[in-house]
Amino acid sequence: MGESWSFLDTAESNFRPLVVIELAKGTKEETVEWFTKRIVDKKADGGAQLLIKPLVTENGVENIYLVGASHLRLLLGAETVGLVKECSDNSMRTFTYSSRKTFKHFADDNHDFLTMAECQYIIKHELENLRAKNEKIIPGYPQAKLYPGKSIVRRLLTSGILVQIFPLHDREELKKLSHNWYGRVKVGYQPLDDIRCYFGETIALYFGFLEYFTFALIPMAVIGIPYYVFAWEDYDKYVMFATFNLLWSTVILEVWKRMCAILTYRWGTLLMKRQFEEPRPGFHGVLGINPVTGREEPVYSSIKRQLRIYLVSLPFVCLCLYFSLYVMMIYFDLEQWALDYHEENESNFSSLMLYVPSIIYAVVIEIMNRIYRYAAEFLTSWENHRLESSYQNHLILKVLVFNFLNCFASLFYIAFVLFDMKLLRQSLATLLITSQILNQFAESLLPYWLQKRYNRRMKKRMCSKKTDTDLSIAEQVNMEKEMGTYLGTFDDYLELFLQFGYVSLFSCVYPLAAVFAVLNNITEIYSDALKMCRVYKRPFAEPTASIGVWQLAFETMSVISVVTNCILIGMSPEVDALFPDSKMDLVLTVALVEHLLLAIKFIMAFVIPDKPREIQMKLAKLEFESLEALKQQ
Amino acid sequence: MGESWSFLDTAESNFRPLVVIELAKGTKEETVEWFTKRIVDKKADGGAQLLIKPLVTENGVENIYLVGASHLRLLLGAETVGLVKECSDNSMRTFTYSSRKTFKHFADDNHDFLTMAECQYIIKHELENLRAKNEKIIPGYPQAKLYPGKSIVRRLLTSGILVQIFPLHDREELKKLSHNWYGRVKVGYQPLDDIRCYFGETIALYFGFLEYFTFALIPMAVIGIPYYVFAWEDYDKYVMFATFNLLWSTVILEVWKRMCAILTYRWGTLLMKRQFEEPRPGFHGVLGINPVTGREEPVYSSIKRQLRIYLVSLPFVCLCLYFSLYVMMIYFDLEQWALDYHEENESNFSSLMLYVPSIIYAVVIEIMNRIYRYAAEFLTSWENHRLESSYQNHLILKVLVFNFLNCFASLFYIAFVLFDMKLLRQSLATLLITSQILNQFAESLLPYWLQKRYNRRMKKRMCSKKTDTDLSIAEQVNMEKEMGTYLGTFDDYLELFLQFGYVSLFSCVYPLAAVFAVLNNITEIYSDALKMCRVYKRPFAEPTASIGVWQLAFETMSVISVVTNCILIGMSPEVDALFPDSKMDLVLTVALVEHLLLAIKFIMAFVIPDKPREIQMKLAKLEFESLEALKQQ
Repeated sequence: MGESWSFLDTAESNFRPLVVIELAKGTKEETVEWFTKRIVDKKADGGAQLLIKPLVTENGVENIYLVGASHLRLLLGAETVGLVKECSDNSMRTFTYSSRKTFKHFADDNHDFLTMAECQYIIKHELENLRAKNEKIIPGYPQAKLYPGKSIVRRLLTSGILVQIFPLHDREELKKLSHNWYGRVKVGYQPLDDIRCYFGETIALYFGFLEYFTFALIPMAVIGIPYYVFAWEDYDKYVMFATFNLLWSTVILEVWKRMCAILTYRWGTLLMKRQFEEPRPGFHGVLGINPVTGREEPVYSSIKRQLRIYLVSLPFVCLCLYFSLYVMMIYFDLEQWALDYHEENESNFSSLMLYVPSIIYAVVIEIMNRIYRYAAEFLTSWENHRLESSYQNHLILKVLVFNFLNCFASLFYIAFVLFDMKLLRQSLATLLITSQILNQFAESLLPYWLQKRYNRRMKKRMCSKKTDTDLSIAEQVNMEKEMGTYLGTFDDYLELFLQFGYVSLFSCVYPLAAVFAVLNNITEIYSDALKMCRVYKRPFAEPTASIGVWQLAFETMSVISVVTNCILIGMSPEVDALFPDSKMDLVLTVALVEHLLLAIKFIMAFVIPDKPREIQMKLAKLEFESLEALKQQ
Repeated sequence: MGESWSFLDTAESNFRPLVVIELAKGTKEETVEWFTKRIVDKKADGGAQLLIKPLVTENGVENIYLVGASHLRLLLGAETVGLVKECSDNSMRTFTYSSRKTFKHFADDNHDFLTMAECQYIIKHELENLRAKNEKIIPGYPQAKLYPGKSIVRRLLTSGILVQIFPLHDREELKKLSHNWYGRVKVGYQPLDDIRCYFGETIALYFGFLEYFTFALIPMAVIGIPYYVFAWEDYDKYVMFATFNLLWSTVILEVWKRMCAILTYRWGTLLMKRQFEEPRPGFHGVLGINPVTGREEPVYSSIKRQLRIYLVSLPFVCLCLYFSLYVMMIYFDLEQWALDYHEENESNFSSLMLYVPSIIYAVVIEIMNRIYRYAAEFLTSWENHRLESSYQNHLILKVLVFNFLNCFASLFYIAFVLFDMKLLRQSLATLLITSQILNQFAESLLPYWLQKRYNRRMKKRMCSKKTDTDLSIAEQVNMEKEMGTYLGTFDDYLELFLQFGYVSLFSCVYPLAAVFAVLNNITEIYSDALKMCRVYKRPFAEPTASIGVWQLAFETMSVISVVTNCILIGMSPEVDALFPDSKMDLVLTVALVEHLLLAIKFIMAFVIPDKPREIQMKLAKLEFESLEALKQQ
């Protein structure tokens, strides 16, 4: 391997720009020189051994650089990041340069062996792992300290010298993808493999989940429609619907795990070894020795972090929860006021007024969720987690708890304190529909419209009438660098999670919720696809093997929904009438049924294997081979 | 490495017998010759490269063979099985022959670097992995078919040519161990590290769990005593006790995981890589190609197995459960009859008679458990599982479900159908105490007494008055080969599991149960230790990193006990009196408290990390090192 590196030609004739680096305006000359030199330097000298070119526009050089790499360099990088690719014998194996000939579609002159997203991921990885050697500071910026092993790019980012790094779109590919994805009206699945090739596994898995979830909701929606059409009000029908819902939600979550294993096995990420996690960019502390790696890096006491979590974050979250409940009580006052008003002056206007408090409340909820989101991000960042994954987990937990309470507290209050099923149904419908409309608008349509307007203005300024695919590289970069940054799948999953709550928590009261959810998700697929392709900068691909903590969140929601639905059914007058003699028997029966359902849920989750047999066999085969290889050594 | 094997001298001067192989009387000469040759053959020729000697007694050669190995051979074997040992820098690492100098206490002339149990485990592993080459049959036994790669020892065992393989006791060590363990009256912990050195990790972990569990029960027992002494009958006190119990049982199960990680890290098994599992000895099928390994071996259709499980085993288990309930109903008839008898002729005799049905029922339960155990073993074996682990899981599941119902059904019936708390307390006490006495007797004391009598007779026949440690090797082998075989920790864990059920399921009715459990466990430690050291053949050491499925079983029991205790408290007249107006409020409050407790349990299980921070750091360090090593390659 050692020799392979010396083959690398850093001045390959056909330079293909993959990633854009934007430095701050007025960055000192010596800094730029040092940074570009480190990027181009040989691996043996501690460089990244990539190719870099300044972007020349009509206005001259603007501190924007294009980064690429030779084909050989990318192949060696693929080995470093541990990419898993399909072999000629259809098995998935970790790519190594020395075994390259055994891989499907590999040829020394085939530059499509690695997808563009993979190449960009490799370059990102190499840039982030470009580490300080003996430099104590960033040349030209004495306040930006370095120490041996510190990631240079992360320090440049935190000191504001580096504005952004983003991968370039491939206009040709994007046009093809968007045509297949949302450009034509068709019935069928999304091109998940194409999405994965273009955007990477994390985003493809989100769209896979969104599609799966939509399909999984269809049976619920279909069963829910007659309830609305025939205005079925008998509770035995509702009981049937709720029972089906509860078991169905367990089944779909378990089956998703299997689907997910099939997808990620095909994409290679199921087999990918977890890389050692470096500290996240924002992490700071006193310089010390990391006990795990033995390297010099900032160290922050875990006790201090625990104190911040339990003495500041936890009380703050509780305060927010209290505030959210307070706002809810105001909503109920408003509701009462509207009702009184309607009773006093009965008119079309006043009956319309009945819906106003719910709509206002739905909007307020959305606003509160968004404000809280910023506070949670600030707090979690202040907690100073060393790892990105631990930061994410704490952030998700904070946001989930608040959003759950914020969205569902009023419904719980109506259901289990006011016992007003009519109001519950009305509130549920208003909240669900308003939040769906708001989300679609705020998330996709508004940014799309803004982006479109901006693009038009840009093009006008450039006095060109070129279509997107004809743009020069300079024009393309200038256009893309102003686009918004996609902040990850968090908000998209959160939206689905809350939707799942609306559908399942009170499903026996409002079977139509599933219908709205399905309709919303169909448009959601299109608007999210539009958002990814047209509104935001291309995001870096991120390999992943599952939807992570969201699986747990959805499962928890489905457990809670067993409890709520059982109580709702128990409270209905029809079920009540079945036990004319004793309320006790009613409650005991409900409790018994609830426990039975929960037990069935857990047994089902236990019995259904998480991976299909076929995938299990393939994994076992690989494990066996690696054990045999170890023995041979 | 290749050369190291050629160093091996199969005729080392100081032959130390480690393992005994007993062949059937009258085994053909050619078979014996072939088998011993294969054992001695060089590794390169497909042999095991071990040392073997026939045992010569007064009666001549008796088809008993002693197996040993040279020191070098054992070290290479330690690498093959993947032993993890402590390095000079106190970290735990997988042993390799080439890095042997870096390990603590390693010296080329230090034959104690590997413990005797480890040596025996290595020899067992090498013997079991002695595989057929081109032989189609076992020479001399045309009906015993072989195919390339088939384990010879397993075929010899299933065809009855090989009677048994067992490791020899080390009389000196055993004497020291038993003195430290149970030989002297002392207050203190068991010598777990010594037990692990002598008996291996699985057994040491069982004793570790038994000890831990006993200590963990002490707080419950201490709190339970005043309830008996002062005859506290107020339910608020019972509520406190039950609440404490429920949270406590969650804490102890979580803390055990941490304890277990500390122990198994120290013993090296936490880091040991899982070996590829070969088919279990009893597995049979049509010769085919294993899709995972690509090797020729018996293949059995998974659909056939599923059919056997769901169409035969499942109905059979249900039938047994029904029968167990039927027996329970007979018990209640008896109970009623005894009560009637007592009322008609009140006397000392008749009041004693009141206890008779419970005692008879307890004995019947024990007998049914044991009979069912055989049936379950037969059925599971008939299901023809390929792997020992899958066989064990199916067996444990069958046995657990039946034993749970068999032991606790009557108590559930008394508590939740008859509502008779006095009878519940009395039944609980009788069942618990009777089953404990029966177990201790049947498991340890009876075999010990039989063994002792047999030993005495043996010695008399040998006309010797030697103590155990002075016996010649021939005498020792002859004595040990007649000893019973220890069938694994299954029954011991099962006993603890049922005890945990008696203590926790109805803890608020009978706080004294914990006291009996503690007392029983203290004697249990002694009688189990006696059983291991004196009654049974030495078992082969078995590396393990946890108590496996038992952790799940105990956790499930503690979840069930939350439900039962909440119901019991809700049913008490004192709590009843708190809600004079409405039974509904009572039931709802109980249900609410139950759900809260369950939620707290799950959150606690989630929040308490499964491994202590220190162990996590050490594991992270090792993982980091192996990632770095991969990069260097």
